[in-house]
Amino acid sequence: MTTNYRDLLEKRRSIRDFQDQKVPLKVVEEILRESTLAPSASNSQPCRFSIVNCKNTIKALSDESKANLLDDYAKDKTSLNPAYVDVLKDKNFNVFYNAPCVIFILGSKRVASLDVDCALAASYIMFSAVERGLGTCWINLGSNIRDPQSRALLAIPDGCRIVAPIIVGYPKAIPPASERHAPEILRVID
Amino acid sequence: MTTNYRDLLEKRRSIRDFQDQKVPLKVVEEILRESTLAPSASNSQPCRFSIVNCKNTIKALSDESKANLLDDYAKDKTSLNPAYVDVLKDKNFNVFYNAPCVIFILGSKRVASLDVDCALAASYIMFSAVERGLGTCWINLGSNIRDPQSRALLAIPDGCRIVAPIIVGYPKAIPPASERHAPEILRVID
Repeated sequence: MTTNYRDLLEKRRSIRDFQDQKVPLKVVEEILRESTLAPSASNSQPCRFSIVNCKNTIKALSDESKANLLDDYAKDKTSLNPAYVDVLKDKNFNVFYNAPCVIFILGSKRVASLDVDCALAASYIMFSAVERGLGTCWINLGSNIRDPQSRALLAIPDGCRIVAPIIVGYPKAIPPASERHAPEILRVID
Repeated sequence: MTTNYRDLLEKRRSIRDFQDQKVPLKVVEEILRESTLAPSASNSQPCRFSIVNCKNTIKALSDESKANLLDDYAKDKTSLNPAYVDVLKDKNFNVFYNAPCVIFILGSKRVASLDVDCALAASYIMFSAVERGLGTCWINLGSNIRDPQSRALLAIPDGCRIVAPIIVGYPKAIPPASERHAPEILRVID
């Protein structure tokens, strides 16, 4: 446990290109244990997790997500950024970028703070992954899983929704940060 | 820049008791610069910031938040956890815990991913603060600022909403983590 903060900032990148190497389940479990240290509204800890550490299952979930997104788009052209349509129609495109592992972060729809609680847990997962030489990316396109069989496969309880599908794997490389603008500070009262 | 990840996990706590010491504005600006490295949906970087580094202003914003929360509660008993009502009626209670500094993270209501984007930036702010010996806490009760004068004071543009008011200061002590349950892992497919 030696990565310093500067290195964490350098190495936490959205990774979409992975080595062909499985993530040991023990490591995923360690990462999830650390993520419980994330803050949550009133310490309610509403996050639940489903781990898919199997490329074939991940591919099937990608196919379902793509079909659902395109179905939705056919009914409502505002449901999706049109830039994604051709990509999603490409049979070879995997929304999870052929990652060896996906952690689905989910929770009850009744929790008003669910989005932010899951996002805070996600950030811990991202940093804990860096600490272990792993890379991650939050794949919003991968959250559209609604087939009852798929939901049963992931053991998603009724009344729950997926907030953050996080792909995890050993990165082929750590790219530089994509362009960032300066923080938009509207006011300073000092 | 030397805090290792294990120390970050130990020291990132929700801090509500601060030393009577101002946070140098330069440090707040460094923290916000680092927070731009947080991921955001499609790298849209929708977060904006308003910094209040003045205890008197913070006290006034606390008073407004409390009044608004109690007003809302009078009209709709489901708007607030009843446990907070007596606390909010206490004139001496400051929702920002007398912190010397508050960073308001906000953004356009039109951004569908605003909550998660701001939460990811908030987590970076929390870790960057630890790196500088500072403590933070996300104060959801402090987000109910709607008086036009207060919003003008914070330079909140029309159509924007506050997602995360983060208090910042030098902690009197770093408490142990409040109780956490084990990660709730619903399924492992390996």
